[in-house]
Amino acid sequence: MARKIAILGGTGAEGSGLAFRLAKAGEHVLIGSRESPRAHQTARVLRERIGGAAQIEGLDNASAAAACDIAVLTVPFSGAAALLKQLKSVWKPGTIVIDTTVPLAATVGGAATRLLGVWQGSAAEQTKELLPPGVSLAAAFQNLGAETLRGDAPVDCDVLVCGDDEKAKQVASELVGLIPGARALNGGKLENARIVESLTALLIGLNMRYKVHGAGIRFTGLPLK
Amino acid sequence: MARKIAILGGTGAEGSGLAFRLAKAGEHVLIGSRESPRAHQTARVLRERIGGAAQIEGLDNASAAAACDIAVLTVPFSGAAALLKQLKSVWKPGTIVIDTTVPLAATVGGAATRLLGVWQGSAAEQTKELLPPGVSLAAAFQNLGAETLRGDAPVDCDVLVCGDDEKAKQVASELVGLIPGARALNGGKLENARIVESLTALLIGLNMRYKVHGAGIRFTGLPLK
Repeated sequence: MARKIAILGGTGAEGSGLAFRLAKAGEHVLIGSRESPRAHQTARVLRERIGGAAQIEGLDNASAAAACDIAVLTVPFSGAAALLKQLKSVWKPGTIVIDTTVPLAATVGGAATRLLGVWQGSAAEQTKELLPPGVSLAAAFQNLGAETLRGDAPVDCDVLVCGDDEKAKQVASELVGLIPGARALNGGKLENARIVESLTALLIGLNMRYKVHGAGIRFTGLPLK
Repeated sequence: MARKIAILGGTGAEGSGLAFRLAKAGEHVLIGSRESPRAHQTARVLRERIGGAAQIEGLDNASAAAACDIAVLTVPFSGAAALLKQLKSVWKPGTIVIDTTVPLAATVGGAATRLLGVWQGSAAEQTKELLPPGVSLAAAFQNLGAETLRGDAPVDCDVLVCGDDEKAKQVASELVGLIPGARALNGGKLENARIVESLTALLIGLNMRYKVHGAGIRFTGLPLK
């Protein structure tokens, strides 16, 4: 049976953009939302947009988490910890979680160009604390903006994949490879997610100063295509 | 009279790389060092390398700071605060300081892929506290590695320029433009230097993981050449 990828918070701009790209690449996607009717609605819209045999279902977050093999966490940082606590007893052993969240100060009414300090060091490291044993974690996609994901065009961005679990990093890198133009880079340990997360705030600042919506990042000098 | 650019800590790898690039572009460069004989030595080597009318002198850091119009701070973070205290009464009013320092944990024996927490938020904001009124500051060049600067080849890197003083940012951007291939980007306020500084640790990690020496960064999606 084909793997199922849950996009938790999948009705938001970032989540639905990722859901669109992954479903378009042929993955079976479960949109998760606090309210399953909204998840149904997003799933329907994306199915119509992609057409053909697109496999996208809408569920509440807990049902999506329980049913998936890979879960991509795309809720705002302000809601991430509460959701993860709720899901702690829900996950199947062996589930891979990919954290895309960024602790932007905007999540508590501050600026989108500033970050909250997270005691653990990063949103991803907070997430790690809130996952049960047997569920592995990588952090990725933080620097791919919703505006960039929303369209059909290839993206001109690298995606840093951080984590302490090689399998989870490998799966995350594989998902990156499904998005045309995106290149997965080994970002090192999960602790490095703090740098990657802060880059999102920098990109938002560049968007504002240069009046664009899709500033992205590429790394040069690497022996990779 | 042509402006003079002091490279404080200019005998180090990063400093001498910058000195080389700026002198090659025709700037009058003062190499500053704790020990002026070492500064003389570096100046001589760079003069011979560039040849022609290259204007490069060696001085102790305080003399270089006193004589310059623009000072580029390239000492290791561990020595930056002490040097800035020493220079507090030395600066001419109107001097522009460009801070390139990064609080890598390596500076106190830790990893080059990790950062020290700086109370002010960044090395650049610490520097700001240690400059007298009338001396203005921008942060730049943190992500251009010594290996990249050392060669003759055009660099494939963007340089984020952060600061709260528009004139200092403009001058820093101008210096970036003297390095073939480098593109100056408006990195916003000085407080954003904390993000740019952390990028250096990420680039060092990429160098290690991909076994290269010159990982760099480019931003995409911007309306700029």
